[in-house]
Amino acid sequence: MKEEINVQAVIIGASGYSGEELVRLLIRHPRVHLAGLTSRQHFGKKLAEVFPRFANHPDAKTIGFIKPEPDLVRKLLKEALLKESSKDLPPVVFLALPHGVAFEWAAPMTEAGACVIDLSADFRLRDASVYLEYYGHPHPTPGLMKDAIYGLPEINRSEIRKARLIASPGCYPTSILLPLIPLLREKLIDPAGIVVNSLSGVTGAGRKAEEAFLFCECNESLRAYGVPKHRHLSEIEQELSLAARKPVVIQFTPHLVPVNRGIHTTICVRPAAKLKDDVSEAINRCYQQAYANEPFVRMLGSATMPDTKRVTMTNVIEIGHRFDPRSGNLLIFSAEDNLTKGAAGQAIQSMNIVCGFPETTGLQ
Amino acid sequence: MKEEINVQAVIIGASGYSGEELVRLLIRHPRVHLAGLTSRQHFGKKLAEVFPRFANHPDAKTIGFIKPEPDLVRKLLKEALLKESSKDLPPVVFLALPHGVAFEWAAPMTEAGACVIDLSADFRLRDASVYLEYYGHPHPTPGLMKDAIYGLPEINRSEIRKARLIASPGCYPTSILLPLIPLLREKLIDPAGIVVNSLSGVTGAGRKAEEAFLFCECNESLRAYGVPKHRHLSEIEQELSLAARKPVVIQFTPHLVPVNRGIHTTICVRPAAKLKDDVSEAINRCYQQAYANEPFVRMLGSATMPDTKRVTMTNVIEIGHRFDPRSGNLLIFSAEDNLTKGAAGQAIQSMNIVCGFPETTGLQ
Amino acid sequence: MKEEINVQAVIIGASGYSGEELVRLLIRHPRVHLAGLTSRQHFGKKLAEVFPRFANHPDAKTIGFIKPEPDLVRKLLKEALLKESSKDLPPVVFLALPHGVAFEWAAPMTEAGACVIDLSADFRLRDASVYLEYYGHPHPTPGLMKDAIYGLPEINRSEIRKARLIASPGCYPTSILLPLIPLLREKLIDPAGIVVNSLSGVTGAGRKAEEAFLFCECNESLRAYGVPKHRHLSEIEQELSLAARKPVVIQFTPHLVPVNRGIHTTICVRPAAKLKDDVSEAINRCYQQAYANEPFVRMLGSATMPDTKRVTMTNVIEIGHRFDPRSGNLLIFSAEDNLTKGAAGQAIQSMNIVCGFPETTGLQ
Amino acid sequence: MKEEINVQAVIIGASGYSGEELVRLLIRHPRVHLAGLTSRQHFGKKLAEVFPRFANHPDAKTIGFIKPEPDLVRKLLKEALLKESSKDLPPVVFLALPHGVAFEWAAPMTEAGACVIDLSADFRLRDASVYLEYYGHPHPTPGLMKDAIYGLPEINRSEIRKARLIASPGCYPTSILLPLIPLLREKLIDPAGIVVNSLSGVTGAGRKAEEAFLFCECNESLRAYGVPKHRHLSEIEQELSLAARKPVVIQFTPHLVPVNRGIHTTICVRPAAKLKDDVSEAINRCYQQAYANEPFVRMLGSATMPDTKRVTMTNVIEIGHRFDPRSGNLLIFSAEDNLTKGAAGQAIQSMNIVCGFPETTGLQ
Repeated sequence: MKEEINVQAVIIGASGYSGEELVRLLIRHPRVHLAGLTSRQHFGKKLAEVFPRFANHPDAKTIGFIKPEPDLVRKLLKEALLKESSKDLPPVVFLALPHGVAFEWAAPMTEAGACVIDLSADFRLRDASVYLEYYGHPHPTPGLMKDAIYGLPEINRSEIRKARLIASPGCYPTSILLPLIPLLREKLIDPAGIVVNSLSGVTGAGRKAEEAFLFCECNESLRAYGVPKHRHLSEIEQELSLAARKPVVIQFTPHLVPVNRGIHTTICVRPAAKLKDDVSEAINRCYQQAYANEPFVRMLGSATMPDTKRVTMTNVIEIGHRFDPRSGNLLIFSAEDNLTKGAAGQAIQSMNIVCGFPETTGLQ
Repeated sequence: MKEEINVQAVIIGASGYSGEELVRLLIRHPRVHLAGLTSRQHFGKKLAEVFPRFANHPDAKTIGFIKPEPDLVRKLLKEALLKESSKDLPPVVFLALPHGVAFEWAAPMTEAGACVIDLSADFRLRDASVYLEYYGHPHPTPGLMKDAIYGLPEINRSEIRKARLIASPGCYPTSILLPLIPLLREKLIDPAGIVVNSLSGVTGAGRKAEEAFLFCECNESLRAYGVPKHRHLSEIEQELSLAARKPVVIQFTPHLVPVNRGIHTTICVRPAAKLKDDVSEAINRCYQQAYANEPFVRMLGSATMPDTKRVTMTNVIEIGHRFDPRSGNLLIFSAEDNLTKGAAGQAIQSMNIVCGFPETTGLQ
Repeated sequence: MKEEINVQAVIIGASGYSGEELVRLLIRHPRVHLAGLTSRQHFGKKLAEVFPRFANHPDAKTIGFIKPEPDLVRKLLKEALLKESSKDLPPVVFLALPHGVAFEWAAPMTEAGACVIDLSADFRLRDASVYLEYYGHPHPTPGLMKDAIYGLPEINRSEIRKARLIASPGCYPTSILLPLIPLLREKLIDPAGIVVNSLSGVTGAGRKAEEAFLFCECNESLRAYGVPKHRHLSEIEQELSLAARKPVVIQFTPHLVPVNRGIHTTICVRPAAKLKDDVSEAINRCYQQAYANEPFVRMLGSATMPDTKRVTMTNVIEIGHRFDPRSGNLLIFSAEDNLTKGAAGQAIQSMNIVCGFPETTGLQ
Repeated sequence: MKEEINVQAVIIGASGYSGEELVRLLIRHPRVHLAGLTSRQHFGKKLAEVFPRFANHPDAKTIGFIKPEPDLVRKLLKEALLKESSKDLPPVVFLALPHGVAFEWAAPMTEAGACVIDLSADFRLRDASVYLEYYGHPHPTPGLMKDAIYGLPEINRSEIRKARLIASPGCYPTSILLPLIPLLREKLIDPAGIVVNSLSGVTGAGRKAEEAFLFCECNESLRAYGVPKHRHLSEIEQELSLAARKPVVIQFTPHLVPVNRGIHTTICVRPAAKLKDDVSEAINRCYQQAYANEPFVRMLGSATMPDTKRVTMTNVIEIGHRFDPRSGNLLIFSAEDNLTKGAAGQAIQSMNIVCGFPETTGLQ
């Protein structure tokens, strides 16, 4: 069925929710050969055993989990690189690890010739002092940090194309950056006073056995958390500041709500003074210019409201907006799947760019 | 068990979620005799048949549903008034009707000597032109509108005590007004630029057989709605303006999330310039002054975040706050049960005040 | 991307949950051209408008809804048949209509040269008197009834291959028949005394605006219904009797539980006397013989228990079993997605057979 | 409000779901003084801190958690016994501990003069060899085991009255025993061939931080577990055998479904041969005789089906039944709250009996 397999892929840390989502998408990706998986818990087992959901896939009994040791993976990559069909493409190593663990993998994997796509926060910041501020310790590989490309395809496509270390954005950041960056770039909104409220499904917390994420603790519960300084804030403000060409400070409040998947974000901004009576049209025009050809951005204008249930299990982000003439504020809404466009899907979108595949390959 | 039954109560429209919640609370209220219920659908039936959940209550087989006709209810009230035990108290008529239907009941019921507590929005506004703006038609009984008391006990207790027509606040308004009114009264926050985001459980939509509220349309769905001008906005801004002694315009975005009960509200405001380094303490002091003796306000300060799962099925509202030194904003959070503190519980709290009962009677 | 489009497909009644699932699967099926959709509610609109979830698909703005009138669909089919690429294949008409409405479509569509795959119960019974017993009126087209093939591919593959009217099985029946038929055929279990308990997600009730299926009525609710004579019983017993070559009467109790998708079935049977100490092995052997090459049957043996969360959004059914030496009973468990293997996916599996495509095409 | 406080109560292990439910019910029980709580995790804290949900209760800031050490509790009991108001009643010690931990507490607490009500399985079995079979080790206090009374008030009321060690039944057993015992006693059903399928909410698994009970692992999941020999089976069969006066072996399959609270049980039995055409009436008569005066048994007959959403947060069990003339089987259904009637509520019902309070005190 897969006529021309071109890229060899490895997932480091494939037992969490993002890792599992990578597996889901990569095993049916027509241009990918899943060369291996690592897991501390599951090494020695086959894919079919660890994730019975994929057991009926033809390769589920051959794809195996190995120990998460750089040497073992390097060996795997070496073999992968010998494969005729993949010869013009670097193998791709996805790091689906907790924050603080991905560091150790980036150098050995890039040195082994792989393109590394990191789903953690380890390489998303450009400024070592911001890293220190938010993570409480100096960045262990400040050199590599500078080389990493922030993997938001709709914004950084050309840099991604040549990248060998891609820091794939977080789920909250994606839901905030895609709606705001074009407006900030075009100076259609005031970069000051932005207020963001996000709702996240519980997969966002990872597959961790903690009391706070038990079914009965989350079901029939609504709560804000991580205020006022959620770690994702650092990368959000970094990228917004780049777009605005001046420092941007936002108010960001995440909430945990009882769904498995999905992030809904509501943003309140002041339209620029230059927009008079035509705020909605100006915003629409700006989004059209930015995203008209983007396969994964669904612009709803002011007619329909985004709803996570229409985007879960897809790589699509929905963006809508409403101008409120009473307050003079512009409300912007987005909805995405935190594991797909907010994590694994976006990472694969970057891989498609790196490999020169059509960007929607394996993501539709 | 109920040693001194004092007040005769009637519920008009007892088949919706708020009506059912009134039944749940009133049948175990030690000072209430539930004299009758009305329902277009269920008249002729007994409580035990319509709500099997209450069937084991000793009175469930005698309390009956009658047709929603003012004459029938008037007759009921007449009999109720004759009862020795209740002689010093007016009977209380709860209107748990859709907006636009409660109008017809207020005059006949107050004229029949009852104290009317309306859970709908029909009598919440003080200004006929605001009513027209938000509801699209002139208020049918503008005279009565002026007589109604906005039934937020923590704020209007003394007016409620003497009221004969109480407009019990909406669920969203309660979750926004209780946190904001003391701060606005004390001028601790800027009345301009307030941004409110609320999450509501699906009982907030009522027991209406509409596709949008089917299990499969709400489960695993997150969506904003009713922007930019939800009808509750009119009463919210009316009461905030009263507190601030100047017109207040807020940004209010409600969201529908898959829980049965609960409203979580996140509010972003600017602290007043006079508060320098001590925003959190000043806010705590203000809340202490306002609510230290309030049995249904749980002040969490900056230590804990409100969570709806701790307040559902209770008449308590949790209020917490965090000052963000980065942005200079103050975040305020509240959590309540939309059917209890946001509807039926609050209405009963008002009834307790009118009747001179301890305010927590039947609500603990 | 779709290199050789071969079959023209039409969905009659594409606005319910099964219809939507057909759309989801058919628009990404590499050998299908979705020629048209009908809907009483939505005719005149494009796919992208009705189901924004699919709006990013390249064809979502061209595929349209037409009125559900046989003449209009006949015209559509005529045009479809002219297409060069599809010339050797009949067009396929999927009927995703409520029971009792599909009748009217079967004759005109088969006469127009289409292969009809009916997802309703209208053509599933072979005996007119059983139909009368369960549906309360005589079957309107008893002749066609006899021509219909019961579309359970794992059991009736060869008949399906030549069929022009396929009655695709119900969701409950699929979850019960696939585990039981091989065992009954091989006389490994007693056909008497079978007790079946099934749990179904709420999509099983269809997209009907009824109070019983509102979010707040289903969430946090567990209830049995449709006992003792659910309509699906008729087709279940018909097919079990065929397998056992004698009349089989079972005890079937469906339950409604708060998930969107999924059916879990637990079956209690008596192993045949001839199986002594080796019940589990005998059952395993039988399933291996029956299903070893089936791409959509995942046999778990006695090691793992089926779980709907591993099969939702897939066409897979999981089957497991445990022998209880204390009681002498054999317990059999199955899990499937009621909308995929239990409805749309299975219908497409039948279409793949009719068209000579690999059976997993578009279903992996 | 509590006019005559009579009994001093202590909860050992008050941080799990059953312990929390005991707290919820006991703090509003008009005849109970909650003298103390123990918790390994929370000792030193006040009730208001550990369970903010109860923080508005007048006593929440005084009731404290102490270390779970028998000596400390003994001291507490000594003081409690001195209180004038409680002098004629033994203090009550509730053991809300995991199975295998309650043992250590029963002897010291009964010796200290308390009535012990154990919510665990430690004292539910009467036969040491059955205990060994199901729990894998000999019962550590076989003597005490024999003294314990199985605390199912509707069945063992008179024994409970005099008991000093009460083994409160499990949640599944309660949902099965109450429907079956009267029918077995009256020989209206065949004690052989009983098939039971139960669905349980996730609080049934306790507040344990295990991956299997994370929100995302339970939400949208349906699965059977614990087959064929769930530990509760031992007590179920013990009590059924007593009722039938002969050994009863049943088939019991529990399922985990995504609700917080609630157990729904479906039972399939053969009516006794002596019941001819009047199965339903005979069953109704039997239940009426057994339960007509029971405040917590709601008999639905064959008209309505039990639904957990009508009994959650109450101590009521709903029982319904349907005879199936096709199969000759009788189906019996029950619904209860696993934490109330299935645990804490039932334990308090026993306490009310021991103390001579009206049985519904604090439970309505």
